Amino acid sequence: MTQLTDENVRARVPDRADLGRALLAPRSVAIIGASDDIRKTTARPLRFLRAQGFSGAVYPINPRRETVLGERAWPDIASLPEVPDHVFIVADTRLVIPAVRECGRVGVPLVTVLSGGFEESADGSERLRELLAVAAEYGVRIIGPNSIGVVNPRNGLMLTANAAFAEADIPTGSSFVASQSGSVIGALMTRAKARGLGFSGFVSTGSEVDLTLGEVCAATLDDPEVGSYTLFMESMENAAALSDFAVEAAERGKPVTVYKLGRSDAAAALAVSHTGALSGEDDEAEAFFRACGFARVDNFEALIETEALQRRVGPPTAAGGRRVAVITSTGGGAAILVDQLETLGVAVTRPSRSVFEQLAQLGLDVAESLIVDLTLAGTRHDLVDGALRVLRDSGEFDLVLFVIGSSARLNPELAVSAIAEHADGPVPVGAWALPDAPESVRRLHEAGVPAFRTAEACAQAVAATLGRRPVDPAVLGARRTEFAGTGRTLDEASSAELLADLGVRFPVTTTCGVDGVPEAQPRFPVVVKALSDRLPHKSDAGAVVLGVADLAGLREAISTIVANVENYDATVTLDRFLIQEMVEDTVFEALVGYRVSPTVGPLVLLAAGGVYTEIYEDSALRLAPVAEDQAREMVAQVKATAIARGFRGRPEGDLEALVEAIVLVSQLALHRPDVVEAEVNPVAVQPRGQGVVALDALVRLSQPR
Amino acid sequence: MTQLTDENVRARVPDRADLGRALLAPRSVAIIGASDDIRKTTARPLRFLRAQGFSGAVYPINPRRETVLGERAWPDIASLPEVPDHVFIVADTRLVIPAVRECGRVGVPLVTVLSGGFEESADGSERLRELLAVAAEYGVRIIGPNSIGVVNPRNGLMLTANAAFAEADIPTGSSFVASQSGSVIGALMTRAKARGLGFSGFVSTGSEVDLTLGEVCAATLDDPEVGSYTLFMESMENAAALSDFAVEAAERGKPVTVYKLGRSDAAAALAVSHTGALSGEDDEAEAFFRACGFARVDNFEALIETEALQRRVGPPTAAGGRRVAVITSTGGGAAILVDQLETLGVAVTRPSRSVFEQLAQLGLDVAESLIVDLTLAGTRHDLVDGALRVLRDSGEFDLVLFVIGSSARLNPELAVSAIAEHADGPVPVGAWALPDAPESVRRLHEAGVPAFRTAEACAQAVAATLGRRPVDPAVLGARRTEFAGTGRTLDEASSAELLADLGVRFPVTTTCGVDGVPEAQPRFPVVVKALSDRLPHKSDAGAVVLGVADLAGLREAISTIVANVENYDATVTLDRFLIQEMVEDTVFEALVGYRVSPTVGPLVLLAAGGVYTEIYEDSALRLAPVAEDQAREMVAQVKATAIARGFRGRPEGDLEALVEAIVLVSQLALHRPDVVEAEVNPVAVQPRGQGVVALDALVRLSQPR
Repeated sequence: MTQLTDENVRARVPDRADLGRALLAPRSVAIIGASDDIRKTTARPLRFLRAQGFSGAVYPINPRRETVLGERAWPDIASLPEVPDHVFIVADTRLVIPAVRECGRVGVPLVTVLSGGFEESADGSERLRELLAVAAEYGVRIIGPNSIGVVNPRNGLMLTANAAFAEADIPTGSSFVASQSGSVIGALMTRAKARGLGFSGFVSTGSEVDLTLGEVCAATLDDPEVGSYTLFMESMENAAALSDFAVEAAERGKPVTVYKLGRSDAAAALAVSHTGALSGEDDEAEAFFRACGFARVDNFEALIETEALQRRVGPPTAAGGRRVAVITSTGGGAAILVDQLETLGVAVTRPSRSVFEQLAQLGLDVAESLIVDLTLAGTRHDLVDGALRVLRDSGEFDLVLFVIGSSARLNPELAVSAIAEHADGPVPVGAWALPDAPESVRRLHEAGVPAFRTAEACAQAVAATLGRRPVDPAVLGARRTEFAGTGRTLDEASSAELLADLGVRFPVTTTCGVDGVPEAQPRFPVVVKALSDRLPHKSDAGAVVLGVADLAGLREAISTIVANVENYDATVTLDRFLIQEMVEDTVFEALVGYRVSPTVGPLVLLAAGGVYTEIYEDSALRLAPVAEDQAREMVAQVKATAIARGFRGRPEGDLEALVEAIVLVSQLALHRPDVVEAEVNPVAVQPRGQGVVALDALVRLSQPR
Repeated sequence: MTQLTDENVRARVPDRADLGRALLAPRSVAIIGASDDIRKTTARPLRFLRAQGFSGAVYPINPRRETVLGERAWPDIASLPEVPDHVFIVADTRLVIPAVRECGRVGVPLVTVLSGGFEESADGSERLRELLAVAAEYGVRIIGPNSIGVVNPRNGLMLTANAAFAEADIPTGSSFVASQSGSVIGALMTRAKARGLGFSGFVSTGSEVDLTLGEVCAATLDDPEVGSYTLFMESMENAAALSDFAVEAAERGKPVTVYKLGRSDAAAALAVSHTGALSGEDDEAEAFFRACGFARVDNFEALIETEALQRRVGPPTAAGGRRVAVITSTGGGAAILVDQLETLGVAVTRPSRSVFEQLAQLGLDVAESLIVDLTLAGTRHDLVDGALRVLRDSGEFDLVLFVIGSSARLNPELAVSAIAEHADGPVPVGAWALPDAPESVRRLHEAGVPAFRTAEACAQAVAATLGRRPVDPAVLGARRTEFAGTGRTLDEASSAELLADLGVRFPVTTTCGVDGVPEAQPRFPVVVKALSDRLPHKSDAGAVVLGVADLAGLREAISTIVANVENYDATVTLDRFLIQEMVEDTVFEALVGYRVSPTVGPLVLLAAGGVYTEIYEDSALRLAPVAEDQAREMVAQVKATAIARGFRGRPEGDLEALVEAIVLVSQLALHRPDVVEAEVNPVAVQPRGQGVVALDALVRLSQPR
């Protein structure tokens, strides 16, 4: 018990160990605003703490009552016999700041705030400023506001007003839930419970004005009973803390599964109105999660079920084993799963003839096919076991998925028990039962076999788990710099020069004035363009002339451009022109872009040039810088690059040179922190072996600060 | 009881009423091959019939035993005291044909065959031919082979070997299940049961060598307790019978939900190997289902849950109310559902300010947003009821979706019971509970509220239900003609002539010989093309010259083309040339195609011209002929048409004229049954008000028979 002495009534910012203890293992807690009216939301934390048998001290604080729900009520924090490790404020908005100040003065390390009223509005912003000032003054850390609370089912810590936690027998498990939505923590708990699964803790991070989701998760990393993480996100913010956490979680082999709202614009907007957060920018979040090594799912129940598969498969590797076998006692069920897997880009691997021969030697009547269908062979325990051994020992698969038929419901002693015995084998085995079979799913989970309630969740879990990449601390570490929002645009020549310094190849180029006398000898035929930072869309202004053959043609081209631009915008005066070697034989035109997102930092983008790319949203985005393997993945991801792969008899393009160009542009993140945006468009991909040439470029620098 | 007399031992093909009775309400059944060994699959039908208390006569037939499972066994069909209405054959393959012959001789109307061995193989094909001959001779109809059987849970008819039907308390319901996969019928039964739902019957159609899925369903249309249909398809075959059924089902207001495998090529191939069926051709199936007015889902549990929503929403109308409101007691849960809906193309409708004002008048604290979020207002019965009344009475919505928070699990007397009271209101209300809440889902179902277990299934059900179109008997009736597989290709001039007769507009065109003397005065400038049915890819052969200004240019162009083609393929001799007015100002180039599928008949296709369309698979396919509203839907579906809608400041194209061109090409189905394929590519879309022009065309006729 900590006594209230002068020494500890000092501001001391709690370190991670303090936070972790206060968060999930406080010796004492207080509830400011605890109600005596059992029907009220504010009565729930005390009710739930008692119902779940929390063994630490609990202090209900309510200055207007002697007792609360039959327990002694305390008038304020200062009157308590000890300093609580964690205080939950469920009081009126206007009481929050005084309460936090009181907490700070006695040295409470962590306060979770349910109350709202700190959102974007004149009053709200003022309150928020004061709240943060008070927290900073005393070194008290805050979860919330708008947090539905914190739960640790392992010790009965129920600092929550979420009605779902009135549940009896809340199961425990390995994964820790951190959610930006309060209601979701209850839904995850109940849906997991229906599968016989539990969690090691829950936190609703609310508005994240102080502690962010990444920081809260990081505070639990030292808890040996927290084996993995389950994140529900409404929007992508505070990426720096989340990436720090991602690096450490990966180092400790604690996998992370994430569901993020905002695939659709409408839901992204909802998330905004709900939490006051900025726009979701889902594509940036996707790139960020990928760099973090997270498994992202879009199926809500897959958020529960993926964790077991991730733990069983183990950390992602660069080589990445992705060979999936499907074995089944129901052909129809297996076809459903294969369809769902392939739709998500997971190709099922066909067993070799040798596998089918070995199955035949076991007396199994199995036709050669994409899958191993035991329907005719029968669903006996020994046959299922034998078939699984053949697949496991074949060396042909990194993951085996078993689709169980009706025996999963009525005869778990057949396939289900045989599968359960393969829980710890050298190759992971997962299972989905076609019929409703909750007991078998539970039994498989208990045995350690990742099991799924629906084919859709199974397919999502497999795609997300096999699609992970190892986390790259170097890339994530580069998220730190802050950049000015608006910037200065360089003209084409300066933009090209900056990018050429990184190694990006541009055509042989020189410049001239209105007199048409080049600074160096041009390599004719050439393209002539106006050079001006006031003409971002040169073609529209008639400021480009192609196929200029000689010096006379150059002078003619300059006259034409000057006339065109005067028509286009009389306020633009031209004094310099770019003379660029013509590039022919282009197989494919790409766009390589770069931008520094205020949310997730430097990003590199690949898209096809032209109007169709925009219509089909055909692009690949990654955190920058990228290495060659990632750039190659981007080229494969952009569908239009098929044009450069011998599509319909066309010549093949030098896509390896495009890979290199992506890598070079992405290195702006390392070498040019002053660049906030760059676009090389088009990058002309030449026939194989002849490289790529950047035909135009635009660079924007941050404002000097 | 039918006596075995000479009169009824005559072939009489059972009519639909006979079939319907034999299928689901037989007075007596026999099981040929019934086993006495309770562990055997072939013992199941008798076990299940007795367990479920089937009240008709049951005759186990097993010539090698006196008794089977304690009941008298009969040596053969002829020795029975009556003619059974429905016989289930579970015997060895070699016994099937003699057994069917025996059934035919005594006048059994319907035989279901579990046994396999009639698939593609020398032996199998020979057996199949004989089986069909015997069936035809005696007028006996066959379900299967490879059918796991037929179940009617309403009367305990369990003619099935599907182990799942060992289930106690099989619930009954409105929808009739017809499945090409045998294991799926058990899975649908158990997964529905877990929701408190049941079915009015189940049939596994197996290989469909005689009765197809459509015919089996049609046989149940007169059953007043069959209110809807639930179809699971592995491949699209026997479309004619299915379309007949679709028309009748729509007339009777019995909605159809379908899940079809083969979205992915791999699963389509699996379906092939599994049933011996032809390639899935999923896009054709999609067009077919749309014309049938079916709701197609890709989420397996949505196949169970969509039926209730379809019945509640009612038949599709041409106008099609698609305004969806989302109301919730959990903001996070609602955001999940909105995200899933929007991903499937269902835009949630924002309530007007007036709606929010009325909510405020009820004392509800609800912020104006895309959704109605009752989180702050609280989840009281009267508040939920009041809010639902406001939405219902606003006239702004065709469907209201309620996302229920934790109260669905712990306090169903709050939101759940209020929603249940809106089961029969003027606007349909559906519900999804964020937490695991099986009891509430059951309660809502019982009250008549379509309820969903997952957000994914809910979104699929809503998208599929609101996306239905009224069935068009005229279009479906045109599926009958059979066409020869290979055909004769017309040259460009003849192709254009044929299409111009339908009203498709081509440029002003004439022809000439190698002498360059036009048959009519060309409208210069013109395009000159070689005319030959041996040059389908004219541009590749250098057989097209653009921008010819006068008669001298025409002669020059002809020399060039002759020389090019001689280089390209010396065996092609040119004697005629097409002289076509140049079409300029084209905003967008489309491809309008037509083909007669052996599976689903005439189809019309819209795609953008060029290489990107193929890469992005950006096309719209419908059964032909189409009316204007459907053609307009196709234009909207093809993303590339955005280019003709003022994309990035481009001029708008005459998309209404494109609509008309699609309609005209689709009318090949009405007027030219001899055309098996046509392609108008490109169709040049001119600026708005200036129509479209078909620049090239290719028509293939069927071989004369």
